[in-house]
Amino acid sequence: MGDKEISSAVIGRLPRYYRYLGELREQGVVRISSQELSEQMKVTASQIRQDFNNFGGFGQQGYGYNVEYLYEEIGKILGLTKKYRMIIVGAGHLGQALANHTGFESRGFILKGIFDINPKLDQMTIRGIPIQMTEKLPEFIKEQGVDIAGITTPSEAAREIATQLYQYGVRGFWNFANTDLHLPEDAVVENMHLAESLMRLSYSLYNNFYHKKLDENPFLEVMKK
Amino acid sequence: MGDKEISSAVIGRLPRYYRYLGELREQGVVRISSQELSEQMKVTASQIRQDFNNFGGFGQQGYGYNVEYLYEEIGKILGLTKKYRMIIVGAGHLGQALANHTGFESRGFILKGIFDINPKLDQMTIRGIPIQMTEKLPEFIKEQGVDIAGITTPSEAAREIATQLYQYGVRGFWNFANTDLHLPEDAVVENMHLAESLMRLSYSLYNNFYHKKLDENPFLEVMKK
Repeated sequence: MGDKEISSAVIGRLPRYYRYLGELREQGVVRISSQELSEQMKVTASQIRQDFNNFGGFGQQGYGYNVEYLYEEIGKILGLTKKYRMIIVGAGHLGQALANHTGFESRGFILKGIFDINPKLDQMTIRGIPIQMTEKLPEFIKEQGVDIAGITTPSEAAREIATQLYQYGVRGFWNFANTDLHLPEDAVVENMHLAESLMRLSYSLYNNFYHKKLDENPFLEVMKK
Repeated sequence: MGDKEISSAVIGRLPRYYRYLGELREQGVVRISSQELSEQMKVTASQIRQDFNNFGGFGQQGYGYNVEYLYEEIGKILGLTKKYRMIIVGAGHLGQALANHTGFESRGFILKGIFDINPKLDQMTIRGIPIQMTEKLPEFIKEQGVDIAGITTPSEAAREIATQLYQYGVRGFWNFANTDLHLPEDAVVENMHLAESLMRLSYSLYNNFYHKKLDENPFLEVMKK
């Protein structure tokens, strides 16, 4: 990879390549051409070749790509050779759902702790991991080291708790709260704003379907019922 | 809005504007300049003006924007004047967490039904809404009309169930399954790929922190413990 700057658009697409290659690998596919991969992923073959050229190309075009090799190389680029110690702060419904999700662990994201301010949850466990009170966070982070904090608190609490976590040394934030975290530049924040995602959906539905006249769109007959 | 095509990048930013304006509105702020909004949102003022010019500008620059008016207009563009009938298919941890989330309802996304294949969940309720078996879906959609289906099934099941829902008339898909739905072009799909989001996070953490030498980065001392 060297020191070349890779655009965030390319980086943003890598996890999707990784997912498709993982599926192909499970199906026992050994080689795949950029053309075949293009058809499955519904992106152009030239896009795929361009994206991969950022990382040296990953193999000879004439022969297609070696699936296993490509999967492993993209995994390395994504930093998946490392294990990440994760905590979840906010043990409400969403926090509990994330904590119950074992699929992340197989990718190297290891849930080490779950935290909340509600004393009723104290010492409840999820997959054997006890829910602890947030005042234990400084000590926990100092002792265990935490790479990623999933923030699933109400939005009012999210900024403050994230700032505290940053001060304790956490740099990775997986933010599900309906607010932006205001953190120093070296914090890495990945936002999962559920409400915003729903609004992009309503925008497209509204403008593709409900904005048009009824007779242009038989689908609306169903929807109007 | 007329017939002008608005870029998806602009659309993608509208929910965030809407969120900030909602917060300002709750704080009782009546007017805000693009400069002030720019500082709060950490985007440039010229970006804000450019984005808003796609929709006629929303008011006079010298006087700043009327917060209430801007909030309402962006809400209209996002289709939030309409109510959307939503179902959730897949009543596992994540599906239940989404079903318990009342914040969406206040924006007009009304949960009408929850579906699963697990008979143990049959007739359990979440917020008074019974979990029904998926074989009830065709009748339910025909009778009630469904605008949006949240897909929280395992990835193996997601494509098939989405294809069925499309056939029954659903056009909006909020996809949490770790796979791409393969649907006809007029389906609107908003993906929330949790695993991909985590990988973007690991990419940045790995390349910003763990890839560097220890002595360049005092933070790693904490992380190594």
